[in-house]
Amino acid sequence: MTADPVALAWAYLSRVAEPPCAVLADLVARVGPVEAAERVRRGAVDDGVARHTQARREIDMAASDLELLAARGGRLITPDCDEWPLLAFAAFGGAEVKVRGGPPLVLWALGPQRLDEVAHRAAALVGTRASTVYGEQVAADLAAGLVERDVAVVSGGAYGIDGAAHRAALASDGSTVAVLAGGVDIPYPAGHATLLHRIGRRGLLFSEYPPGVRPARHRFLTRNRLVAAVAGAAVVVEAGLRSGAANTAAWARALGRVVAAVPGPVTSSASAGCHALLRNGAELITRADDVVELVGRIGELAAEQPRPATELDGLSDDERRVYEALPGRGAVTVDEVAISSGLAPERVLGPLAILELAGLAQRQDGRWRIVRAAGRRSEARSFTARLV
Amino acid sequence: MTADPVALAWAYLSRVAEPPCAVLADLVARVGPVEAAERVRRGAVDDGVARHTQARREIDMAASDLELLAARGGRLITPDCDEWPLLAFAAFGGAEVKVRGGPPLVLWALGPQRLDEVAHRAAALVGTRASTVYGEQVAADLAAGLVERDVAVVSGGAYGIDGAAHRAALASDGSTVAVLAGGVDIPYPAGHATLLHRIGRRGLLFSEYPPGVRPARHRFLTRNRLVAAVAGAAVVVEAGLRSGAANTAAWARALGRVVAAVPGPVTSSASAGCHALLRNGAELITRADDVVELVGRIGELAAEQPRPATELDGLSDDERRVYEALPGRGAVTVDEVAISSGLAPERVLGPLAILELAGLAQRQDGRWRIVRAAGRRSEARSFTARLV
Repeated sequence: MTADPVALAWAYLSRVAEPPCAVLADLVARVGPVEAAERVRRGAVDDGVARHTQARREIDMAASDLELLAARGGRLITPDCDEWPLLAFAAFGGAEVKVRGGPPLVLWALGPQRLDEVAHRAAALVGTRASTVYGEQVAADLAAGLVERDVAVVSGGAYGIDGAAHRAALASDGSTVAVLAGGVDIPYPAGHATLLHRIGRRGLLFSEYPPGVRPARHRFLTRNRLVAAVAGAAVVVEAGLRSGAANTAAWARALGRVVAAVPGPVTSSASAGCHALLRNGAELITRADDVVELVGRIGELAAEQPRPATELDGLSDDERRVYEALPGRGAVTVDEVAISSGLAPERVLGPLAILELAGLAQRQDGRWRIVRAAGRRSEARSFTARLV
Repeated sequence: MTADPVALAWAYLSRVAEPPCAVLADLVARVGPVEAAERVRRGAVDDGVARHTQARREIDMAASDLELLAARGGRLITPDCDEWPLLAFAAFGGAEVKVRGGPPLVLWALGPQRLDEVAHRAAALVGTRASTVYGEQVAADLAAGLVERDVAVVSGGAYGIDGAAHRAALASDGSTVAVLAGGVDIPYPAGHATLLHRIGRRGLLFSEYPPGVRPARHRFLTRNRLVAAVAGAAVVVEAGLRSGAANTAAWARALGRVVAAVPGPVTSSASAGCHALLRNGAELITRADDVVELVGRIGELAAEQPRPATELDGLSDDERRVYEALPGRGAVTVDEVAISSGLAPERVLGPLAILELAGLAQRQDGRWRIVRAAGRRSEARSFTARLV
C-alpha cells in the first residue's frame, strides 16, 4: 500500500536501533533517511552504528508497520513534516542533553491534534501511579483549569496522576497528549485501553517506538524526555521519593523547561517527591493559573488570589490602637482610651473621629463605644494584620 | 515588699509607655532606669518621650506589679540579668528593625526555664488558630521531635497550631516557651488557662507587658517580634493568606532568622499562607530533623530520609535493558534478547552473566528466563529509576 520510499526508510530506521540512538541520528542527518536505511540494511556502516543496529538490521517491518498505522488513522511524523515540533526539540541541541538522549528520529502518532500546535502551549502533568484521592483531585482540577485557558495537558497515560489529568482534560473538551513508552497500538496499561483510545480519537497519542513494541522500564525513562520536551513546564502533582515523575522533572530541567510541583501533606509519602523538588527550586503550584503563568505568553500573569479583607484594613497604626483600646462592652472617656492605648489624649481624638466616620466607633454622652456589625465581629476577632 | 529601687524603676517604665518605645529605651540607655523613671514621673523629659509617656505617667503600679509577680513565683528579666538573651536581642540592632520595634525594655516571666538557655537552641512553631486536624498533627509531631533533640518550642499560646505545639512539647517533657501579648497573669485565650498554667510551671511564660494588661490586636503583632527573636527559626505550620503567623515570619526575616513553612494540601486554605511563604523563599519543612538542621549546631545535619530501594538499583544501563528484555514468562535465546533489547548479541552476554550472579536471571538449556523473588516482583513493577 504505502510505497513512499522515504516513509519506508524512516519506519525501518525507527525500529532498527533502540531509540534514542545518536550515531544513527547522525548518519541520517548526513546522508538522509533513504540512504541511511540502505546502508544499515547492507551493514555498510561504521562500528558505532553497527553496534546499535546489528541485532535488528535484518528485521524490516516498515511496510506492515505503516499499513497498521494507516489502518488506525495514524501518521508518521518525521523531521520533514510541518507538524514536527522543531522549536520544542531544539532543546535537545545542548551537547550534554544529546549524550543522555537526543531528539526522536520519528514519531508514530494517532489523533486529530497537531503536535506542533499543542507543543506551542502545553504543560505536562505527571505523577505517581500510587496516587491518593488528593493527588487525583488536584491533577483533575489543574487539567480542567489548563484546558479552559487553552493549555494542552501532556502526560504519560499511566494509572494515577497521569490518568486523572488526561480524563479531566477530555471531560473539559480540551487538548490532551499521551506520550507512550511502546507502540501506539499497544494500550499500556491495559486498564487504560479505553482512555487511550479516547485520547487517540480526540487528542494526540504518540511514541517514538514502532507498532508492537512493548513498554519496558528503560523505555519509560526514555519516553519521559519527550513528555518534558513537548511541554513548557513539567508539573509533578504527586510523587514518592523515587518516582518516574522525578525523572521527567530531571529531563525538564536538562531541557531548560520549568520544573514545578504541587505540595501536599507532609504526612503523605505520595507528596514526598514533590517536596524534594520544591526544596531544589521547583516552582510551587497551587492552581491552574500558576501553571498558565509558567507556560503562557509573556506577561500572561495569574490572577491575584482573593484574600480575605476586614474593615480594619485601611486604618493607620494609631487608629488601630485606639480601636483596640475601646472595650468590648460599655463606653469610655477619651482619657481612658489614652491610657489603655498608651497614646497621648490629643493623639486619640483624631483616630476616634476617623473610627466614627468609618462606623467602627460611636460617641454617646461624651464617651466612646465600639460599633460592631453582626458580620464584622468574627473578622475583627482574627488578628490578621501584617507587619506594616 | 520589694523595695529594690532599680526593679521598681524598670517595672514603672514597663507600664508608662506602650512598648516598644524607642525614645524611652534611648533615655534609659543614656541615664539608667532609676533616673529615667524619675524624669518621666516628673515630666522632665523631651517632647518625644513625653508624647509616649504623658497618658500614663501618673500611674505607678510598680510595687504591686512586682508583688503580684513574686506571689506567683515569677521574675522580672531586665537587661542587667544574666538571663537576658543578649545574643537573641542583638538582632534588633539593625536600624531598620529598630524603627519597627526594638528589643523589649524588660520581660515579665514565669517558669523554671531560663530564657537565655532556651533561646540558645529554640524554634518557633506558629500558625493559624483556625487549624485543621492535619496542621495540629504536624505541629505536635514537629514539637515532639524537636524537644527530643533538645530544641525548645516557642509559640504564642494561642488556639490551634500554637496550642498543639506547646502541648506536644510538654507531653514529651521538653522545653516550651509561650510569649504572651498581655500580662502573664492574664490567661489568654481563656480556654488555654490550664495549658498556660502548665507552661508557667514547667516551661517559660513571658511578656513585655506588666500584669493586668489585656491582649489587643497591636499587642499580638508586637509580641510576634519576640517570638521571632528568641527562636533560631520561625516555622509556620499552617496559616491562611492573612495570618498572624505571616507577621511572625516577616519579623523573623527582618531579624535575620530562618523562615520556614510546612506545606499542606493546596485544597486547604489553612496552608495557603505556608505556600505563599515557600514561594518567597521559606525553607520547606517536612519533619523535625529539617528544623534541627536550621537551628542546631553547625554541621548538625538531618538524617538521610529512608528511600525505597530495589534490587535493580546497582545495575548498569545495559544490564537493565537486558533485564527488561527478558519476557515476564518463559525463556528466550541470546539472539532474542539482543533483538528485544536492541543491543548487539555480544553486548548481551556480559549483562546476562551479571544478572545471573545477582540472582535476577537464570540459564536453562541455553535459554534465559527472569527470576523473580516473591517480594521483588512488586518492586520490579514500579518504574522507579532516575535519570542516570
